[in-house]
Amino acid sequence: MINFETSPERYKHWKLGVAGAVATLTMDVQENETIADGYKLKLNSYDLGVDIELADAVQRLRFERPEVKAVVVTSLKPRIFCAGANIYMLGTSSHAFKVNFCKFTNETRCAIEDASANSGQKYVAALNGTASGGGYELAIACDEIFLVDDGNSAVSLPEVPLLGVLPGTGGLTRLVDKRKVRRDRADVFSTLAEGLKGKRAKDWGLIDGHFPTSKFQEAVAARVKEIAQADGANSKATGIKLNPLPVEASENGREYQYVSLKLNREQRTADLIVRGPAAGDLPASIEEIEKLGDAYWPLQAYRELDNALLHLRMNELEIGLVCVHTAGDIDAVLAADQTLVKHKDHWLVREIILHMARVLRRLDLTAKSFFALIEPGSCFAGNLLELALSADRTFMLNSPDEKVEVATSEFNAGILPMSNGLSRLQSRFLATPEQAEEVLAHEGRFDTEAADEAGLVTFAPDDLDWDDEIRVAIEERTSLSPDALTGMEASLRFAGPETMDTKIYGRLTAWQNWIFQRPNAVGPQGALTNYGKPTQPQFDYKRT
Amino acid sequence: MINFETSPERYKHWKLGVAGAVATLTMDVQENETIADGYKLKLNSYDLGVDIELADAVQRLRFERPEVKAVVVTSLKPRIFCAGANIYMLGTSSHAFKVNFCKFTNETRCAIEDASANSGQKYVAALNGTASGGGYELAIACDEIFLVDDGNSAVSLPEVPLLGVLPGTGGLTRLVDKRKVRRDRADVFSTLAEGLKGKRAKDWGLIDGHFPTSKFQEAVAARVKEIAQADGANSKATGIKLNPLPVEASENGREYQYVSLKLNREQRTADLIVRGPAAGDLPASIEEIEKLGDAYWPLQAYRELDNALLHLRMNELEIGLVCVHTAGDIDAVLAADQTLVKHKDHWLVREIILHMARVLRRLDLTAKSFFALIEPGSCFAGNLLELALSADRTFMLNSPDEKVEVATSEFNAGILPMSNGLSRLQSRFLATPEQAEEVLAHEGRFDTEAADEAGLVTFAPDDLDWDDEIRVAIEERTSLSPDALTGMEASLRFAGPETMDTKIYGRLTAWQNWIFQRPNAVGPQGALTNYGKPTQPQFDYKRT
Repeated sequence: MINFETSPERYKHWKLGVAGAVATLTMDVQENETIADGYKLKLNSYDLGVDIELADAVQRLRFERPEVKAVVVTSLKPRIFCAGANIYMLGTSSHAFKVNFCKFTNETRCAIEDASANSGQKYVAALNGTASGGGYELAIACDEIFLVDDGNSAVSLPEVPLLGVLPGTGGLTRLVDKRKVRRDRADVFSTLAEGLKGKRAKDWGLIDGHFPTSKFQEAVAARVKEIAQADGANSKATGIKLNPLPVEASENGREYQYVSLKLNREQRTADLIVRGPAAGDLPASIEEIEKLGDAYWPLQAYRELDNALLHLRMNELEIGLVCVHTAGDIDAVLAADQTLVKHKDHWLVREIILHMARVLRRLDLTAKSFFALIEPGSCFAGNLLELALSADRTFMLNSPDEKVEVATSEFNAGILPMSNGLSRLQSRFLATPEQAEEVLAHEGRFDTEAADEAGLVTFAPDDLDWDDEIRVAIEERTSLSPDALTGMEASLRFAGPETMDTKIYGRLTAWQNWIFQRPNAVGPQGALTNYGKPTQPQFDYKRT
Repeated sequence: MINFETSPERYKHWKLGVAGAVATLTMDVQENETIADGYKLKLNSYDLGVDIELADAVQRLRFERPEVKAVVVTSLKPRIFCAGANIYMLGTSSHAFKVNFCKFTNETRCAIEDASANSGQKYVAALNGTASGGGYELAIACDEIFLVDDGNSAVSLPEVPLLGVLPGTGGLTRLVDKRKVRRDRADVFSTLAEGLKGKRAKDWGLIDGHFPTSKFQEAVAARVKEIAQADGANSKATGIKLNPLPVEASENGREYQYVSLKLNREQRTADLIVRGPAAGDLPASIEEIEKLGDAYWPLQAYRELDNALLHLRMNELEIGLVCVHTAGDIDAVLAADQTLVKHKDHWLVREIILHMARVLRRLDLTAKSFFALIEPGSCFAGNLLELALSADRTFMLNSPDEKVEVATSEFNAGILPMSNGLSRLQSRFLATPEQAEEVLAHEGRFDTEAADEAGLVTFAPDDLDWDDEIRVAIEERTSLSPDALTGMEASLRFAGPETMDTKIYGRLTAWQNWIFQRPNAVGPQGALTNYGKPTQPQFDYKRT
């Protein structure tokens, strides 16, 4: 079982140091500390364990070290920055694992860009040696890239020429869409196993600067100092600590404080319950929020939700459908939203909201079906209404005897954007944008009929039909081809505009998934299978 | 060998009738007239042969019947409009064929939308019976959809529930991005094998209207009449005839009048040569152009190029790299461009330019590598410069003794958009849009140094290096994994904005290609394999 929780004192592969406004994340991968057997992490190559630590560090810097304005990513290994995802790990992994591994590493790189864009923490890749494959992909997730000029160190994407797969962690997309490298040069670079060095790498836009070995540290430090001295609101902020999540794991699920995950393995479904804040969970002032720290409901509940989603993805592959429930008091959820909105310019509240948005995007990008079930006692309101709007379908009980309601808040108006840059209401009502406005302008709560009328729910069965209708919908869903569902959901969830993120998850990932199961990559004579062996790959050269 | 040329008198599956401003395209698939063995085309299901006829009809209506303003697409079969792509054909086809088949049918549907958007020919799907799968995908490529209310006829996308694959001909994308169906409803519809009828189909936005059997013909005719009476410039235009292309096919290639395709099978490369217009090919007036008709250089050369590209895709799977050459007089190409621009508001010239744009998009979307070679005697100017800008790499000889030049025209300024909506110069210079402007503002031709300086070429080897450099580049390219190249090129060619077209070709297609080789679809127990058999599919339920 893969554990997604860690903390700096437990890191095996990274060192995180902070000096004033500058943090340094140093990669020093321990080759024997792998999360699976059968490979060694040589040359600062990485597996999922290495990336879980990186994701943790990026997250902690935002919450624990808000004074940091520049993060230097570098390596402790001489002449090597990072060799990318470990090839033997990829070669021995199942297709499903490879796909999930790439999705997680993509999310980590998008989190770096989110920290840069929204938290004022700029990332600088200080390439003290060669950055190849995923190593260069990590670099281009940073804001600036500096490469040492030692006559040897290069940046490269050798996946196509050496492995017959794509640089699948956003590399191709970021080349042409973020760094806007000319497409013919991107083509040359992406087929050149040895990569490019110094001046040509700079001329082609692959790096931002290069310095001889003797001046490298000093030159990078000077640039980082400039960045760290730029104006920023957090300079005097004091961070909060992210403590380990309270979780009780059992055979059939995971119990957190605000989240329960119940697995119905026979049905291949899970019930995911998110509980709203209790009355005592509702601080009003920034001081109280800071004091609560990671115990503050919006932060803790969403950290738990994030962990539950990752667990479902990686450790529970056979679970195909997640039924999403909420439990609690609608007014309490709305009160929490109101407090967050009121203080949204405070660094900590800003980080909490950004985190909620990232967790919901993680849900959007999870290759499982989601049905939201709105029943008496549920609290799909404001930020938790986003769970229903994220779901592939929403069922709301229509009962004359019981109170079943949903409600909106400012949190449904764009504060929690999807990967396509739209709010979930905007994505839902692409054909009738005025409907999104009407929903937001609605006074008070929506009962089932009002919610149905407003377009917020898919089906609104009554008491008599509810059990049967839900049961049949679940049975039907779980009987379908899991692959067809993954492709269908990836196509239907993200209508409207495209962004670099949606290109990475929708287009690049789909092509990589395709290639990851082609015999030319993973067959007995495929390039990935034969890498590092005396045998040469044999291709079926038919173009498809 | 698949032949992409046809004409109405040879159609087996469609009837094309024209009455005034209304054309009717009637589907009446002959079940035994298949292009391969092993299946029958029951229930108006289609194979590539059926779609080649449809593509031909759409094209001919634009050139031969410019007076047409409304095209009704319907069926001669009772109670069935179209059952979509034939499942047994898919089940018995190779992966490469399935992928190429879907790409072609997608291009046909995009051509329908191009005719509607740019040629004033609106398409109305008159569903006189059930439209399922590709049948409904054909309908949503039309502007309006009307369904008969006979208690039985429905629209449906049963691919996910019945076959374990996607509706891959744009269906999912057009559901949420063109018709903007609410995502949860799109989810329900796409998993409902029996589809939806009448009122609910209309309420959900899947169709535009429904009429009882007794009133169906009349109601559709009334709506079509309205469309046909709308203002349009072509009313009095007389079409030109699209005659069969002159082509001499041999073992090693195809010789057309303006295009030569030479296959180097051992090297798995092809030389594609496009010849510019000769002095006698340069009419100046509309009358002369109309008189030349399909013999007019820009139309004939691009029709030949289109045919050569389709031949390469479908009949020459092992050719991985196409070296693109041009031969002729730069001034003659620029003169042709000037004449076209001068008359671009005349319907025929407009159609010729739209056709050139479609052919170039076909090239952009071809899963082969393209290298453009600019040498003495070449004429990469104006519209033909787009061939170099479409290529993955461009090599231009730098010779002190010989004249090697390229030139721009208005044709490089947006008249021939890529699928992403940008010109090829805009796509090339995303990082520095001013460079695109500078190229267009440049006085006169570019010699090699000027072209290199302007960013128009990838490499500019001199006489001494040329042969070796080209040879090595070709050898390297053709040694790489063809699958990795396909994914890489699909990612690098289309930077910048996304459109419905790029979503269909980039995202939906990639997911479909992935699913098309998953054991859950095509394995011995897969859903596609087992369709119509007494055996049930057995899924590996791991979600990926």
